[in-house]
Amino acid sequence: MSISEKVKSVIRDVPDFPKPGILFKDITPVLANTSLVHEIVQELVKDFKSGGYDAIIGIESRGFIFGSLLAYELEIPFIPVRKAGKLPFHTISESYNLEYGKATIEIHQDALKPGSRVLIHDDLLATGGTAAAAARLVHKLGAETAAFSFLINLSFLKGDNILFDEFGVKPNYLISY
Amino acid sequence: MSISEKVKSVIRDVPDFPKPGILFKDITPVLANTSLVHEIVQELVKDFKSGGYDAIIGIESRGFIFGSLLAYELEIPFIPVRKAGKLPFHTISESYNLEYGKATIEIHQDALKPGSRVLIHDDLLATGGTAAAAARLVHKLGAETAAFSFLINLSFLKGDNILFDEFGVKPNYLISY
Repeated sequence: MSISEKVKSVIRDVPDFPKPGILFKDITPVLANTSLVHEIVQELVKDFKSGGYDAIIGIESRGFIFGSLLAYELEIPFIPVRKAGKLPFHTISESYNLEYGKATIEIHQDALKPGSRVLIHDDLLATGGTAAAAARLVHKLGAETAAFSFLINLSFLKGDNILFDEFGVKPNYLISY
Repeated sequence: MSISEKVKSVIRDVPDFPKPGILFKDITPVLANTSLVHEIVQELVKDFKSGGYDAIIGIESRGFIFGSLLAYELEIPFIPVRKAGKLPFHTISESYNLEYGKATIEIHQDALKPGSRVLIHDDLLATGGTAAAAARLVHKLGAETAAFSFLINLSFLKGDNILFDEFGVKPNYLISY
């Protein structure tokens, strides 16, 4: 079985979460499967080890998990992007539209050196709104979004095209629905 | 320099966050220091490798970072405990008092096998309210809190005594203020 098939076989579908009509992809059974976590991290390492990245951004909060693990294995800094009001030092922020209303994420002003090449990680790519906002934060700090990494792509939402069109970077993901 | 001294020298003090009078301990410079992250994880591994733990709980969201890394190195399952409404499957919840109002955290009902020995990790031990609520979730599932792991203990808040009195487990931490 390929790693994609393994991950798909372990992810749990939860109907009607967070609201009716949504089939949520629950990765907690993946996190409980230690050999699969190791395989996923090794696959990500293989995909990204030659990319010359200077930092990995993990998007709060599920993006902290494999984001930290990948940064650890690649031996590059881990930088958290968090929801508004959570980072303690001087921040810059970026808002983006949700289906109803807006969300805001932040990064520390001194988190990235200008010119650095950044990999942005989150567990799930849906419409790409959060990842695009994270990439805009990277650019505001004078750095470059050199890669997007996701475990799961919900291809029917076209987030991969949206990110490619705005940033010229083709998102990487392990599995797609 | 000992690892505790190194970590202390890298943590950033942010005054008046999240509110006036609080001196916040910012670990983001630690996360950006790859060799220090590796030293911290190896120190945690040394402390916990012989404990026979069946799972590591990381408390959302900063507890996800070193919680995942420790679970990865010890090759045991990582279980997220999250704020109310974030976990998609059937959950149990536990509320605890904050200075003003209450907070609620949740765990998946099937996250732990009865009788399993659990290590609970968060980055910071303050009054111990969140960690105690996490331990109560562990017990509700018929499992045992066998260890508490923190990077930082704010000793003047006596969280270590509070956790020991309620659960009979002496919390482990790398540094103390």
